[in-house]
Amino acid sequence: MNIIDIISKKRDGYKLNEKEINFFIQNYTNGSIKDYQAAALIMAIYINGLDEEETTIFTLEMAKSGEMINLSDIGDIIVDKHSTGGIGDKITIVLMPIIASLGIPVMKMSGRGLGFTGGTADKLESIPGYNTDLSLEECINNVKKHGISLITMTGNIAPADKKIYALRDVIGCVGSLPLMASSIMSKKIAAGANKIVLEVTVGSGAYMKTQKEAEKLATIMNKIGKISNKETVCVLTNMDEPTGFSIGNTLEIKEAIECLKGNIPEDIKEIIMELGAYMIKLSGKGDNLEDNRNLILENVHNGKAFSKFVELVKAQGGDIGYINGEKEFKQAKYVIPVVSDEFGYVKALNGENIGNISVKLGAGRLQKEDKIDNAVGIVLNKKIADKVEVQDVLAYVHSNNEELGKECANELKMAYEFSKEKVLKKPSILGVIKEI
Amino acid sequence: MNIIDIISKKRDGYKLNEKEINFFIQNYTNGSIKDYQAAALIMAIYINGLDEEETTIFTLEMAKSGEMINLSDIGDIIVDKHSTGGIGDKITIVLMPIIASLGIPVMKMSGRGLGFTGGTADKLESIPGYNTDLSLEECINNVKKHGISLITMTGNIAPADKKIYALRDVIGCVGSLPLMASSIMSKKIAAGANKIVLEVTVGSGAYMKTQKEAEKLATIMNKIGKISNKETVCVLTNMDEPTGFSIGNTLEIKEAIECLKGNIPEDIKEIIMELGAYMIKLSGKGDNLEDNRNLILENVHNGKAFSKFVELVKAQGGDIGYINGEKEFKQAKYVIPVVSDEFGYVKALNGENIGNISVKLGAGRLQKEDKIDNAVGIVLNKKIADKVEVQDVLAYVHSNNEELGKECANELKMAYEFSKEKVLKKPSILGVIKEI
Repeated sequence: MNIIDIISKKRDGYKLNEKEINFFIQNYTNGSIKDYQAAALIMAIYINGLDEEETTIFTLEMAKSGEMINLSDIGDIIVDKHSTGGIGDKITIVLMPIIASLGIPVMKMSGRGLGFTGGTADKLESIPGYNTDLSLEECINNVKKHGISLITMTGNIAPADKKIYALRDVIGCVGSLPLMASSIMSKKIAAGANKIVLEVTVGSGAYMKTQKEAEKLATIMNKIGKISNKETVCVLTNMDEPTGFSIGNTLEIKEAIECLKGNIPEDIKEIIMELGAYMIKLSGKGDNLEDNRNLILENVHNGKAFSKFVELVKAQGGDIGYINGEKEFKQAKYVIPVVSDEFGYVKALNGENIGNISVKLGAGRLQKEDKIDNAVGIVLNKKIADKVEVQDVLAYVHSNNEELGKECANELKMAYEFSKEKVLKKPSILGVIKEI
Repeated sequence: MNIIDIISKKRDGYKLNEKEINFFIQNYTNGSIKDYQAAALIMAIYINGLDEEETTIFTLEMAKSGEMINLSDIGDIIVDKHSTGGIGDKITIVLMPIIASLGIPVMKMSGRGLGFTGGTADKLESIPGYNTDLSLEECINNVKKHGISLITMTGNIAPADKKIYALRDVIGCVGSLPLMASSIMSKKIAAGANKIVLEVTVGSGAYMKTQKEAEKLATIMNKIGKISNKETVCVLTNMDEPTGFSIGNTLEIKEAIECLKGNIPEDIKEIIMELGAYMIKLSGKGDNLEDNRNLILENVHNGKAFSKFVELVKAQGGDIGYINGEKEFKQAKYVIPVVSDEFGYVKALNGENIGNISVKLGAGRLQKEDKIDNAVGIVLNKKIADKVEVQDVLAYVHSNNEELGKECANELKMAYEFSKEKVLKKPSILGVIKEI
């Protein structure tokens, strides 16, 4: 077998078999297949596609390219959750303590932010002392003791995916649905999950700009899940505007704390209820989704979720003084209001633009090596469908540099579009894809 | 402009414009576009194609990526000739002295052999003393003085093509018709030709296995010629078996000398008459093809072509004692007859197999760095349609290693296929594509 024959086969639109996909993944991971050969194959895959079987094999081979985490110590059923990303996404930080408070073990690895989306690991690290870099053993011990651990990517998880993802980024092949699906699923499978709830985000602040695309991606991931025997549910959520009101690491943590105390913005509430209901169902703790939704809210309102969050932060070395209000998070030096010149109803609020403004403020990274300023970011005051008068505050820019802050405030004003007519708010849940 | 946008455009099947193609060629040649990015674009081109206009721009940009040779010192009309390659191809060595003997200036750069086809420069170098590495100035001076110079690739001709060709080879993208066409035409245009006669070989010993493919390639090259104002004629020739009887550098030179003395195998005669007739026509020295064909044979039979060849060899430092018969070329130690076990008519004689056997004997290269043994090779005794009795000699293997020679003799026997029925010989000229 040789790589040129494999490339030529996919180039001509033929189906690759397990041996060929295995040959490619193994030899690209170990460096004996060159980047330019992988680039040619990836482009042929982008154009000619992978069918369900090929995509599943591709996924499993990427998962097997590194460490396969065994979580059977924690339980027979391990439910994981993943989001295709968005602006102001603090769902993991809110939802996972709730799930853990219901007695369902939670062990989740999260990435760091790059480009216009933030990363859960960065957000957690804005809690002074919180250590996301636990070893796998420490993490599993925490789950056994506290029922929850939230860490960053550990060990050698799906190195083939890491290499292929980086390559896709520089050869115009990010948007391939089978490659996106296999990238997400390979990491979840390697991370030890056997039940997976996926949030597929749709809209201006997401990779998938249309519901149709998102449905296609979700369908492929569901099929991979089915064929590889990992029950998978995809919840499509609206990402036409940021999730909640805050963007920026500390600002989002503060909003997450408020949520766990019961002050939950409507969109976050809808999303955690839906994702949570499926997580409970998949874990075997409740078949009725309506009951499950109520369980989610119940454990927020009775304080159990917040207690679990405090327990999590403490277990990972975080200073709980910041969580229980004894201490104040460090604030940005300047809080600049964005004042409206117009009146009407907010019609659109470009998510990608807002993400880019927050990166410019220092809340995110353009390069892997960039440092993050935890205090800076944006707090929205008006969101889609809200009524706005001239001189109303649309949002606040939190900046440590006055000039930059003002510049970003101006840009943020431009991200708002208004309508003189009333605007109908889209629901946060756009659909669920759970059966094939 | 950035390469990812250009890749994405071709990936999605859109047409690239001149600026985009120029950006790619320039920046890939200077190294700022990486091999993996070029690989992705080349694969997208392979699958989604280039139209006539794109192919022509691609060709001209590759030509312009290095030195553009100016031959106006030699004459206003410069006719060049190129072949897509075959086994035992000594057409250039026979035809060019004939053309020069007719008063048409000949300046030709030829490549070296790689893989199963040989290279004209290697063949000429098997004449002791013959120097193919002339500078461009020396070469032009020789053409002015003697009307002819045959050298190897000089200077910095189409470096973009060199890089792209090498890349195509390792990513399964050799067989793209627009890329093949632009590779050939870019080198001819950069080499200073304004009239081009192309031999497009078809059959088991050629890259193009079918006449249909060859016609497509020829049509694309004709169109590039037309759009870029270089009159181009493509002659399709049969390469189901080697050209002439000899394969191997010295053996082919000896056969070429015999041809120039008037002992021309039928297939070589047909090909030089057809290609030569068009070269004369394109050079403006004769519109009637039948007259031109006769001019070719006339200058062989009156000895003018042979004299011109002697003049050429002398001018490039070669020892003419080997040409005029005073000295003997060094022979291989072992000449092993290949004896037939069968009777019947030769039905097929796989050209690619024969090429590979000759490489194995040492007559060709697998890697650029491989040394060539000039003396070794194959002399066929029976070709397609010939009648064969049991014990007849099919061919002779010339080897400097007895065991290897015997092994190759066995393999050569397997390259012959027999029929009990009479076999019809294909003509050597399969068609001419000269107008669009």
